[in-house]
Amino acid sequence: MPEVVFSVDQAMSMRDQKVPGHNRWHPDIPPAVTVKPDSDFRIECRDWTDNQIGNNDSANDVRDVDLTHAHMLSGPIAVEGAEPGDLLVVDILDLGPVPQSQGEGSGQGWGYTGVFAKNNGGGFLTDRFPDSYKAIWDFHGQQATSRHIPGVRYTGITHPGLFGTAPSAELLARWNAREQALIDTDPHRVPALALPPLADNSLAGTADGETASRIAAEGARTVPARENGGNHDIKNFTRGSRVFYPVLVPGALLSGGDLHFSQGDGEITFCGAIEMGGFIDLHVDLIKGGMEKYGVTTNPIFMPGNVAPQYTEFISFVGISVDHETDTNHYLDATMAYKNACLNAVDYLMSFGYSGEQAYLLLGSAPIEGRLSGVVDIPNACSTLYLPTAIFDFDIRPTAEGPRKADRGQCAVTS
Amino acid sequence: MPEVVFSVDQAMSMRDQKVPGHNRWHPDIPPAVTVKPDSDFRIECRDWTDNQIGNNDSANDVRDVDLTHAHMLSGPIAVEGAEPGDLLVVDILDLGPVPQSQGEGSGQGWGYTGVFAKNNGGGFLTDRFPDSYKAIWDFHGQQATSRHIPGVRYTGITHPGLFGTAPSAELLARWNAREQALIDTDPHRVPALALPPLADNSLAGTADGETASRIAAEGARTVPARENGGNHDIKNFTRGSRVFYPVLVPGALLSGGDLHFSQGDGEITFCGAIEMGGFIDLHVDLIKGGMEKYGVTTNPIFMPGNVAPQYTEFISFVGISVDHETDTNHYLDATMAYKNACLNAVDYLMSFGYSGEQAYLLLGSAPIEGRLSGVVDIPNACSTLYLPTAIFDFDIRPTAEGPRKADRGQCAVTS
Amino acid sequence: MPEVVFSVDQAMSMRDQKVPGHNRWHPDIPPAVTVKPDSDFRIECRDWTDNQIGNNDSANDVRDVDLTHAHMLSGPIAVEGAEPGDLLVVDILDLGPVPQSQGEGSGQGWGYTGVFAKNNGGGFLTDRFPDSYKAIWDFHGQQATSRHIPGVRYTGITHPGLFGTAPSAELLARWNAREQALIDTDPHRVPALALPPLADNSLAGTADGETASRIAAEGARTVPARENGGNHDIKNFTRGSRVFYPVLVPGALLSGGDLHFSQGDGEITFCGAIEMGGFIDLHVDLIKGGMEKYGVTTNPIFMPGNVAPQYTEFISFVGISVDHETDTNHYLDATMAYKNACLNAVDYLMSFGYSGEQAYLLLGSAPIEGRLSGVVDIPNACSTLYLPTAIFDFDIRPTAEGPRKADRGQCAVTS
Amino acid sequence: MPEVVFSVDQAMSMRDQKVPGHNRWHPDIPPAVTVKPDSDFRIECRDWTDNQIGNNDSANDVRDVDLTHAHMLSGPIAVEGAEPGDLLVVDILDLGPVPQSQGEGSGQGWGYTGVFAKNNGGGFLTDRFPDSYKAIWDFHGQQATSRHIPGVRYTGITHPGLFGTAPSAELLARWNAREQALIDTDPHRVPALALPPLADNSLAGTADGETASRIAAEGARTVPARENGGNHDIKNFTRGSRVFYPVLVPGALLSGGDLHFSQGDGEITFCGAIEMGGFIDLHVDLIKGGMEKYGVTTNPIFMPGNVAPQYTEFISFVGISVDHETDTNHYLDATMAYKNACLNAVDYLMSFGYSGEQAYLLLGSAPIEGRLSGVVDIPNACSTLYLPTAIFDFDIRPTAEGPRKADRGQCAVTS
Repeated sequence: MPEVVFSVDQAMSMRDQKVPGHNRWHPDIPPAVTVKPDSDFRIECRDWTDNQIGNNDSANDVRDVDLTHAHMLSGPIAVEGAEPGDLLVVDILDLGPVPQSQGEGSGQGWGYTGVFAKNNGGGFLTDRFPDSYKAIWDFHGQQATSRHIPGVRYTGITHPGLFGTAPSAELLARWNAREQALIDTDPHRVPALALPPLADNSLAGTADGETASRIAAEGARTVPARENGGNHDIKNFTRGSRVFYPVLVPGALLSGGDLHFSQGDGEITFCGAIEMGGFIDLHVDLIKGGMEKYGVTTNPIFMPGNVAPQYTEFISFVGISVDHETDTNHYLDATMAYKNACLNAVDYLMSFGYSGEQAYLLLGSAPIEGRLSGVVDIPNACSTLYLPTAIFDFDIRPTAEGPRKADRGQCAVTS
Repeated sequence: MPEVVFSVDQAMSMRDQKVPGHNRWHPDIPPAVTVKPDSDFRIECRDWTDNQIGNNDSANDVRDVDLTHAHMLSGPIAVEGAEPGDLLVVDILDLGPVPQSQGEGSGQGWGYTGVFAKNNGGGFLTDRFPDSYKAIWDFHGQQATSRHIPGVRYTGITHPGLFGTAPSAELLARWNAREQALIDTDPHRVPALALPPLADNSLAGTADGETASRIAAEGARTVPARENGGNHDIKNFTRGSRVFYPVLVPGALLSGGDLHFSQGDGEITFCGAIEMGGFIDLHVDLIKGGMEKYGVTTNPIFMPGNVAPQYTEFISFVGISVDHETDTNHYLDATMAYKNACLNAVDYLMSFGYSGEQAYLLLGSAPIEGRLSGVVDIPNACSTLYLPTAIFDFDIRPTAEGPRKADRGQCAVTS
Repeated sequence: MPEVVFSVDQAMSMRDQKVPGHNRWHPDIPPAVTVKPDSDFRIECRDWTDNQIGNNDSANDVRDVDLTHAHMLSGPIAVEGAEPGDLLVVDILDLGPVPQSQGEGSGQGWGYTGVFAKNNGGGFLTDRFPDSYKAIWDFHGQQATSRHIPGVRYTGITHPGLFGTAPSAELLARWNAREQALIDTDPHRVPALALPPLADNSLAGTADGETASRIAAEGARTVPARENGGNHDIKNFTRGSRVFYPVLVPGALLSGGDLHFSQGDGEITFCGAIEMGGFIDLHVDLIKGGMEKYGVTTNPIFMPGNVAPQYTEFISFVGISVDHETDTNHYLDATMAYKNACLNAVDYLMSFGYSGEQAYLLLGSAPIEGRLSGVVDIPNACSTLYLPTAIFDFDIRPTAEGPRKADRGQCAVTS
Repeated sequence: MPEVVFSVDQAMSMRDQKVPGHNRWHPDIPPAVTVKPDSDFRIECRDWTDNQIGNNDSANDVRDVDLTHAHMLSGPIAVEGAEPGDLLVVDILDLGPVPQSQGEGSGQGWGYTGVFAKNNGGGFLTDRFPDSYKAIWDFHGQQATSRHIPGVRYTGITHPGLFGTAPSAELLARWNAREQALIDTDPHRVPALALPPLADNSLAGTADGETASRIAAEGARTVPARENGGNHDIKNFTRGSRVFYPVLVPGALLSGGDLHFSQGDGEITFCGAIEMGGFIDLHVDLIKGGMEKYGVTTNPIFMPGNVAPQYTEFISFVGISVDHETDTNHYLDATMAYKNACLNAVDYLMSFGYSGEQAYLLLGSAPIEGRLSGVVDIPNACSTLYLPTAIFDFDIRPTAEGPRKADRGQCAVTS
């Protein structure tokens, strides 16, 4: 086990740690620690909500979650010698839930998947599922089961949802400008188009006074992926992956968290992975001048690991970019096509007895593949969703006899 | 080798075959042949353009292609006993290029990848690549190489681009209405938003007289994927796959073609696969009433085969839904995010000495994976592209030394 | 399709072809054709017995097979410029059954698996299964089913059982000496320990007169693998593989055949693969002086292809090197350990209703993995057998409820 | 993390633990703890030698190891309700090295691979490598590197080498009888044919007095695999595996240890895996009467997990059952065939600059596949070894240019 360079006491909020983390992106958040290139180290992480969600059978905590606290990140980690223009090479050596029992939060043997209500961020299928739902998952080594979604057990594609380097002041200003421009096109939309900087509940690491105030006023919210990495939610950032982040400020200032026990492509329920606190072991190194050398100027690149669970039999669902409610074509819209693929999968799973909500939570957390299959055949994009059959303890394949319908219970709902 | 129920003489146009195929969707195209459930059979196919593209070093034929002929489909195959509401179970037993030398067209030992000019349909990256380009691929068993893109050799994920059942008259009318509505939003756009029915060069199988005229006037163009299947361009329809098509008219009337030797997710160059004529062996069966039984009412579902080439090491590219030229956010637009992932991959390949056009053609035809990684993290969708490293005969990974830049020639361009 | 350099009319014996092949190893068999390095070509092959086995429900033909005809090889192919000490690089581009209906033999849509009687060669489990058995397999594209073993369907790991370069005269003499020495230790054993040269039914290509007589007298039998390659029966010589054969005589003189539609590790029934006639497409090249450069002096090396069918769930059986009948230890004998793993698998399959003979034929032809798991833990070697669960159309896994026993028919037996 | 039911203080010998384990098989070793069916729990383990090997650059400790202490097992674990004839279902949920720094032994961030000297057990290739050698491996998450074998990095196929249920008194007596019979055939052989019971350094858990003496006198040594499981050294017992052990005594009495960070098929150096102390999380359940229901009467069966590292490109080596030193045939001897495949791989690796000892240690610990490819082609068995190319940081494939020979240092040797 490598040295812990950012430690978390899971019994306390990130705000109360000896060295607190942060929940906004800003170049002036002071480094929590400095490491050398070519070194291994461990970072401990809170769950992304700072443990607002409990191991119980009500979705009220998901409905009432305060998203101004999110995402609680560990860091920043400064890397000696890193300069703008370099590539920061980050190897994901290992990650997992909280190794020792340190209280009751997610990551101590369990995690959760949630669907936010439409008026609190919503999810991918929020028009069909406008309320809040939750499923609790119990960890059994690398596998998870849920009392809220019986009949399914899967090996987690464990990965961090969010890691990134600090933006430069110039880049941060561009983010804020372009996102505000988007918000201004429909400022009262529910859910919102984007989230502007917000001082409420901002946490700026060890910064205080005027610096903390400036970070609170300017710091970018952590929800989207951006040029620095950020909330990628790429399920393929598994153990053994190597990520090449652009270095945008001296020292690179790497931060992250939002660990996921498992997630399919898309994290379709928004809070869709099996969320948990835990630890992550990293190795860092530098490619000097790598951004220009390799033409990596806009986004990180990466090489996935080779220990993700292997599945070879899938039921696959196709979606096209037609709004079938209104029979309207949306020109080459792969997002809508994937939405339809998801809805088709929900309908299929319901034919076996799951509720729509259970099916939705299952698709958000299971190791599904989501592919951009056709993006040029005007006017319809075609997206596909691959659901592994082996995660079910009953036969999920279509046969002449029809589906094995059964009472499959229900997930946690709001009261 | 199963019985050939639809045969093609590759020396002649599809129009001149003893039993011609068709290039529009319409319920009244007469079946070319009727088969029984639970039977194996072979269909022979022309390349999708009816062999307008030659094995040469000029992209002029791609620039000048007449798309009103496309796609040239083999069929319709009527299945005894199929009724609306059933699921037609189609096993893809085998497929491949033209087995015997029957002239000079694609599929006789070679295939092609093309990029259409912006004013003739364009491709996925048409703003950056507005002209026509072409690469010829030579087949070596299951592998392909190209004199136009040296340094790369890959095993094809052989699959049909286009198969589907005939739409009902009611569904066809809905297609025509909704696509016309889309066209009407910007009728003079280049490239067009969608393609309305077009009598020019329409081919209606063995229909003639008034029926043929009606089909020409009403028949849906074959470019997009729709509720009946159609031009899915899903690379995972490989040998061993089982597809469940909705049956919309008596007899199901299955048709298809557009065989691909290889293609990555997205078929990003539009004519992006390695295109070829060839054969496909199918087995068909029925699940009576299967559409309602399994909730498969909108699109086909399928189970992919297990003989696609296995790669385990990838360079992966991330894209987000920001127009980086103008620094503008596009709300959760996975299509734009994938476009950026593709452009990032192009830039990366250029650092090794490929031209942008070569890189684009390579990405369109190689066994790349394209995934919808994040579709809920407002405002940015995140898409990812996975390029297998093993297809290159040089080391394509990022290292401290920088890329091995070399002169890598050029693809076919227009004169 | 590359040029056919060795063609076979499947309606006739190999002996009656315009250019016949051979069934013994000898450096003086004249080349049937000469090819250039860096060229693609096709070879057509008879099934290994020269079509002695029929598509019927009796195992009498297997019982009565005349093995003096085997293996019927296509070749020799001389490679220009090949000299002793080189490595001959052979790419397996493609292979498959006979593409056109040319009569009735195996490879024309079907193949067979057989168990030889103990007094005619026997098989791996000949003490438990001393008689002859047979199963006929029908080909459906890349998959096979059998009326003799219902409930199972699998994708073939198609490969050639036997390819090799010609031995030098010196090496041939060593083979004959060392194998005779083994025979002499127990000359009347049934089955025999090894097979000495045999003039009866010897076929020496286009050689005649004294040369043919000498070849008949000295030529090594084709049954075992030896330094030149030979009857490897390695299931991983799949499409896309690259094999590096030692060159032992000028021109290399490559020959082969014994095509298999499918086979598990070990070819445990002796005639254990799904045997067929067919074609194979090769590319050849040379590494000059490669044997010494890479220390490849004893046996070929190879790189397997990446399109073998993928399975991820297995029932696995362990065997140790104890003769459980007599409770006797055999010191680190991996062969006996694998025999026990096979017998354990037979017993397991019988609990589901298969006959022992069916189970044996299934294991010989299905895509099983056989591994040398422990070879140093005195006194017991440990071998393991991995049976993919997905090839069964019923649930083959152990559960608390016990196995789903059913009447599963019977294979072809002798009358 | 599940409850620890067998804990180990890594600073002390297994003999000094509060509840010590054992190092012999005997039905009368008292259970250390009793668990319920359908429960999860953790067991902590010493390395198999009870930490006789140090993290240094001398192989003297391997040369001088006292094997009478081996294998140090954790347990026995009694399972409530288990009766002879049942199958004990054991899920391997997780395993790994010692999670917290508890001293200096193997498993605290490092492990070792060793070759024993011929006069102390020897290894698979002991005739060629009669001395002692060692390599130390550093753990980086799921990957390992070695200062003694530079140029290679691989993801571990982490697994337990040894688990089993207690033998019945009757079975134990049969073991002792049959192994003594083998020893008696050559009682002074070096290395020995088998190891009889030995009181020296015997450890019998919490047994004492006469019981401990009887266990010392009768207890079977732990080296081989036997009917109860035992020292399988099957690399495929990875996380997610489910093993079905025969229950031979009331309570089943499951014990195990000998954790491996990585190992190829065969554990060819004897002490061939990367050995470590650590932990293992298990779930147990029962199939009542399962031995007869499923015909599992001789050895355990198992279903491997699906998170082993995936490799798709291999250099493969063939061996046949000929002693090439003396040019002698060994009839269908797969063990000798695998020995030759290993020696061929050693020669190949030496062409790149590794010493023979380094190559041997590498093959013993890397994720190689070892297959029983042909076991019926008289007189030669054919075994194959698959070495993944991706574990090397240089190109290991054969090319026309010849191997990239370099100075690759040396492993630890004896002084």
